[in-house]
Amino acid sequence: MMAVSAIDRLIQLFARLPGLGPRSARRAVLFLIKRRESLMLPLVQGLSDVSDAIKICATCGNIDVNDPCLVCADLRRDSTAICVVEDVADLWALERTSSYNGLYHVLGGTLSALDGVGPEDLSIASLIARAGLDKVVEIILATSATVDGQTTAHYVAERLAGCDVKITRLAHGVPVGGELDYLDDGTLSAALKARRPI
Amino acid sequence: MMAVSAIDRLIQLFARLPGLGPRSARRAVLFLIKRRESLMLPLVQGLSDVSDAIKICATCGNIDVNDPCLVCADLRRDSTAICVVEDVADLWALERTSSYNGLYHVLGGTLSALDGVGPEDLSIASLIARAGLDKVVEIILATSATVDGQTTAHYVAERLAGCDVKITRLAHGVPVGGELDYLDDGTLSAALKARRPI
Repeated sequence: MMAVSAIDRLIQLFARLPGLGPRSARRAVLFLIKRRESLMLPLVQGLSDVSDAIKICATCGNIDVNDPCLVCADLRRDSTAICVVEDVADLWALERTSSYNGLYHVLGGTLSALDGVGPEDLSIASLIARAGLDKVVEIILATSATVDGQTTAHYVAERLAGCDVKITRLAHGVPVGGELDYLDDGTLSAALKARRPI
Repeated sequence: MMAVSAIDRLIQLFARLPGLGPRSARRAVLFLIKRRESLMLPLVQGLSDVSDAIKICATCGNIDVNDPCLVCADLRRDSTAICVVEDVADLWALERTSSYNGLYHVLGGTLSALDGVGPEDLSIASLIARAGLDKVVEIILATSATVDGQTTAHYVAERLAGCDVKITRLAHGVPVGGELDYLDDGTLSAALKARRPI
């Protein structure tokens, strides 16, 4: 009989969020309760707004309040390049860098024999349809540098072989600000192989 | 122009929760968006329920959906003892142990010269009023073992000197499961001083 069912239920919901456990969920809920006007009510409103408005872009798979999403709808963007990512989080991460001005395609995961994810579970068919459009010149495979990510990139590259597009992938190398000492052998040898003249 | 204002606003609200930063807030929001039916809508409902129903117990300061709270209203509890805690979180922590059957009093913080918290900012007056009731026999000071917590305990004990009650505090000692090797000197010497015959 600690506090009360409604509060406990809320704590249990919070505990399901990534990065929060039962203890930090309890802390977050108590924090919210103490800031009812300034944080709890805005959060209710914000969650309702987003859950009502959220759409998945039928073109690229981005999550947005518009369909097509703001990226696909932006005419100033370079529609000759499509960057293929695993997840919406990766798309957002690339957008934050402000160093890419093309379009995206969200696969929705990676191929994984272990988790039973096959090609038909990812939005590969729609990518091939997009790659077939006349204006598309380059497909950048920006899947993770994990085994599953690289397998997926290879599979997608194979499936795209018939399309008349240039297929590229992200460079491997030393992370900016990274110390050689702490790098794994794979990254270091990849960086060495891909060395460039200054 | 990463995602969109409504989503960004929600991420900013989440980032204000304790234990979440901008990055984990973004992850949590994306997690919620992908689980709209199973998690996001229940969370909206849960937050609304709690924010509508929440009350602060006028007697002890506990947060509950009832006033007086379930602890104060429970006639099976021992109303001769009042356990004084800093925060509602401490009350909940003690309740989880199921080893205390008395009542509580939430101070709402600790005295702190640095943060400008004086006695009038804490619910000390109401504690003294409660301590003056005939049935109350013992006041247990369960503030934190920090400098501010102990200062507060001493101050409260002084203020209670006029009341006809026994004033106790939590024992200091070796945490259960703790290794002596890793204990700080203060705890270790407190445990030694307070040693007991087996």
